Amino acid sequence: MFEHTTKIRVRYGETDQMGYMYYGNYAEFYEVARVEMLRSLGLTYSGMEASGIMMPVLEMKCKYLKPALYDEEITVKVIMDKMPGVKIHFRYELFNEKEELIHIAETLLVFVNMANNRPCLPAPDFLDKLKPFFK
Amino acid sequence: MFEHTTKIRVRYGETDQMGYMYYGNYAEFYEVARVEMLRSLGLTYSGMEASGIMMPVLEMKCKYLKPALYDEEITVKVIMDKMPGVKIHFRYELFNEKEELIHIAETLLVFVNMANNRPCLPAPDFLDKLKPFFK
Amino acid sequence: MFEHTTKIRVRYGETDQMGYMYYGNYAEFYEVARVEMLRSLGLTYSGMEASGIMMPVLEMKCKYLKPALYDEEITVKVIMDKMPGVKIHFRYELFNEKEELIHIAETLLVFVNMANNRPCLPAPDFLDKLKPFFK
Amino acid sequence: MFEHTTKIRVRYGETDQMGYMYYGNYAEFYEVARVEMLRSLGLTYSGMEASGIMMPVLEMKCKYLKPALYDEEITVKVIMDKMPGVKIHFRYELFNEKEELIHIAETLLVFVNMANNRPCLPAPDFLDKLKPFFK
Repeated sequence: MFEHTTKIRVRYGETDQMGYMYYGNYAEFYEVARVEMLRSLGLTYSGMEASGIMMPVLEMKCKYLKPALYDEEITVKVIMDKMPGVKIHFRYELFNEKEELIHIAETLLVFVNMANNRPCLPAPDFLDKLKPFFK
Repeated sequence: MFEHTTKIRVRYGETDQMGYMYYGNYAEFYEVARVEMLRSLGLTYSGMEASGIMMPVLEMKCKYLKPALYDEEITVKVIMDKMPGVKIHFRYELFNEKEELIHIAETLLVFVNMANNRPCLPAPDFLDKLKPFFK
Repeated sequence: MFEHTTKIRVRYGETDQMGYMYYGNYAEFYEVARVEMLRSLGLTYSGMEASGIMMPVLEMKCKYLKPALYDEEITVKVIMDKMPGVKIHFRYELFNEKEELIHIAETLLVFVNMANNRPCLPAPDFLDKLKPFFK
Repeated sequence: MFEHTTKIRVRYGETDQMGYMYYGNYAEFYEVARVEMLRSLGLTYSGMEASGIMMPVLEMKCKYLKPALYDEEITVKVIMDKMPGVKIHFRYELFNEKEELIHIAETLLVFVNMANNRPCLPAPDFLDKLKPFFK
């Protein structure tokens, strides 16, 4: 298992007139958390794209347990439960400043070779960096 | 069963550098489609909020089958399979201009009395307008 | 002078907790209005990009006179005061459902040849379609 | 003069298919930078709203000098050139990771008493915290 935690503050533009973070904006929080998880391993998503591999999202699901409010610093925990293959699965747990669990989510992404637009395995160095966490 | 169809064109600001509609922006398409479904019944979500009932989202799940591309007019079909109670469930099917199914989703929302922030039943006229479709 | 009018409804996700359309979201309204103006001439921005010309924005300025509210259908008038050269200037006037002027804006864009990333003139057919309006 | 600097990384969802940060997303960067400037003074915008004062934007203008690219950490410098009265003016300078100036902007905001929706002066403690910088 590999875990990583990122803190993201809710912007004013991310709220809606209900006074909550708009339900469509959580997906961007997952994205930021995934990217920071990769960075913690010494990898960048921009580098991956530069090398010809992109990671579109195939599936997403989530539950909104409590609202995220303006200016709260949300703790986003990303969890990878198993080694990726052609597909990579992430779970997310979001906590507010009171450390209450406010949101859970999952996404399934696929590695795609941008040259032929087909699914592919991630680069070996990507897998090498993850292996120590899945023994 | 009650169905309604709305067409929404992908804006430039909704694309990302992959050249696809960003995966977080579909939620706004569902929202627009839900609101237009209500409007087709002679109801408005803004009127519902003005009457003291809001509809936060509890759960969402979706599958990205094919990308939605810039400037495509996406057909968003919303389906309500059963009469709402305190909660209301919607399914969505998105089609591109070639009439290919590109995305499916589901959301579960709850009616909330804004005065006490508690779940509640929708207004009787809301239910009355839906009943003919669920006999 | 060339004018075109588009109607765009304010989405829930575009509001903020002030209950207004978030000030950063107007730029997307200008973009939609520009694109629909081009379409009214039989041109598409996607076609322009496919032909190797893109139109990044160089300058923007705007005044927020009254708020745009959730679910209001905003009328966006785009005005081109003079024939474009390498740069193209647009003015915008936004009206709410009471026909009150709520917002004015201007943007300056530039035609860029995507092959060499340099400013360029728009395609001749683009200019030909505009000429009748600037005699 | 009062200055403050914030760093904000460009999210994938903020790019568009041109591969640049979408031109409408800069406004959110200004907002974050303003809020962090206030926080550096020991003030929060959420606290200001809780006390009954909001700060809608009246005017904005900006120039896009170079694109902001995905995953770049943008340095946003906010400058307040003079003490606010009923209105408050901010200038912004954005720099990319190569320390190139990529964007300049200005916004004019107004303090509004939420009880009567009329312009008002900011709270005395707000002014007190700023005074030392404007002698």
